[in-house]
Amino acid sequence: MIITFFNVWLYNCIMNRPFVFINVAMTADGKIDTFQRKGAAISSLRDKERVDELRAGADAVMVGGRTLLDEDPKLTVKSEVLRAERVRRGRPPNPVKVGVVSQANIKENSQFLTTGPAAIVIFTTRRTSKRQLSLLKARNVDVYVDDAQQVNLERALATLKDLGIERLMVEGGGTLNFELMRLGLVDEVTAYVAPVIFGGESAPTLAAGSGLQRSEAISLHLIDAEKWEDGGVLLKYQFER
Amino acid sequence: MIITFFNVWLYNCIMNRPFVFINVAMTADGKIDTFQRKGAAISSLRDKERVDELRAGADAVMVGGRTLLDEDPKLTVKSEVLRAERVRRGRPPNPVKVGVVSQANIKENSQFLTTGPAAIVIFTTRRTSKRQLSLLKARNVDVYVDDAQQVNLERALATLKDLGIERLMVEGGGTLNFELMRLGLVDEVTAYVAPVIFGGESAPTLAAGSGLQRSEAISLHLIDAEKWEDGGVLLKYQFER
Repeated sequence: MIITFFNVWLYNCIMNRPFVFINVAMTADGKIDTFQRKGAAISSLRDKERVDELRAGADAVMVGGRTLLDEDPKLTVKSEVLRAERVRRGRPPNPVKVGVVSQANIKENSQFLTTGPAAIVIFTTRRTSKRQLSLLKARNVDVYVDDAQQVNLERALATLKDLGIERLMVEGGGTLNFELMRLGLVDEVTAYVAPVIFGGESAPTLAAGSGLQRSEAISLHLIDAEKWEDGGVLLKYQFER
Repeated sequence: MIITFFNVWLYNCIMNRPFVFINVAMTADGKIDTFQRKGAAISSLRDKERVDELRAGADAVMVGGRTLLDEDPKLTVKSEVLRAERVRRGRPPNPVKVGVVSQANIKENSQFLTTGPAAIVIFTTRRTSKRQLSLLKARNVDVYVDDAQQVNLERALATLKDLGIERLMVEGGGTLNFELMRLGLVDEVTAYVAPVIFGGESAPTLAAGSGLQRSEAISLHLIDAEKWEDGGVLLKYQFER
């Protein structure tokens, strides 16, 4: 805990971005969803509580476009106690919801937009329609439009830092996770490995994207491997620098 | 150790197949190779020793077609001491090499065929050319040809059992691993998780194939999660029955 807070403080001093940590639940064969990509349940009850605590400790929670559009996540803190604790410490009940989506097409009645209260930030590109941009702005969403095909993630993180985000939790998917790691923008990864096999050549994994050659592979530093009673294993890594 | 031997004995009594265990080395993001599929090194030195001990304790080592043709593995026991120990116990120095490959096209000078001494068994189908079948037979390879598009894995395991194979180690790839698990033909899975990220939407994982829906997912029983000094984690699972 002391190390984590020290890290946050250290990065805040020297980095023009928040402290960034990825959290995933994955199967023993490395899948974060089935081939059907409907947001299959992987976490145990205890892991769901852990994720809720991580969210409650974050200033913002970020997801990529496919996760946002396919799974329509709420991204709110589930526990009333944890929300109350945030408010007691002078923070909003829920972290800021952040979506990174090159071509946004978020439905007005989506859980992402309607579950809260929570501030919402969307990073997108010119590929998003004007109609969608109007819809988002009418909903008081803070929208940043990049003049490129893809969102510039370094700039997005700098913007979040300017908005006062010190701790950013990333909840996938694999493409966003990979791009952030490839660019050296991640400080920690936590993975709950559930005792289950999904298989599937096309099923998504923790880190997707184009992938790296062996010589370019990203090295991690193992912090902990906890064996849980529910048959899961909690792996925690920091990034080597 | 006692449990393992008991399992072997138990399965030998009631099953018409060997005790089957899968071993893999994978990255923290669940990849068993990079997107280039050239057999990227993932194991640490200590893990290589562990794998060699597993091989030395097996009667046969099995790989699937893509692994066999792309990576051309030797599948022999590396340690002279372990080979000598096998011989002292009246066994051949190396386990039997087993390839499951629907359309075999193994080169005469391949490491798989030439590194030994080791008996070799190939399970294939009518899709393999007569020329290849002649080549294999001329090399004293024991060839079984299924009259189907795919090798019948249940029958292949029964054949291995008839040939005296009591402990079968499976060393991938993802398609063979998945098919064996889907058919309920696996007793244990051991995965060394290296502290590294490869990424890649197309990079292979422990279990590939067509994949399962959430309701069909295969449940495992976690036996152990060891944190290693080299930053790796050794996960060991048994299959729930």
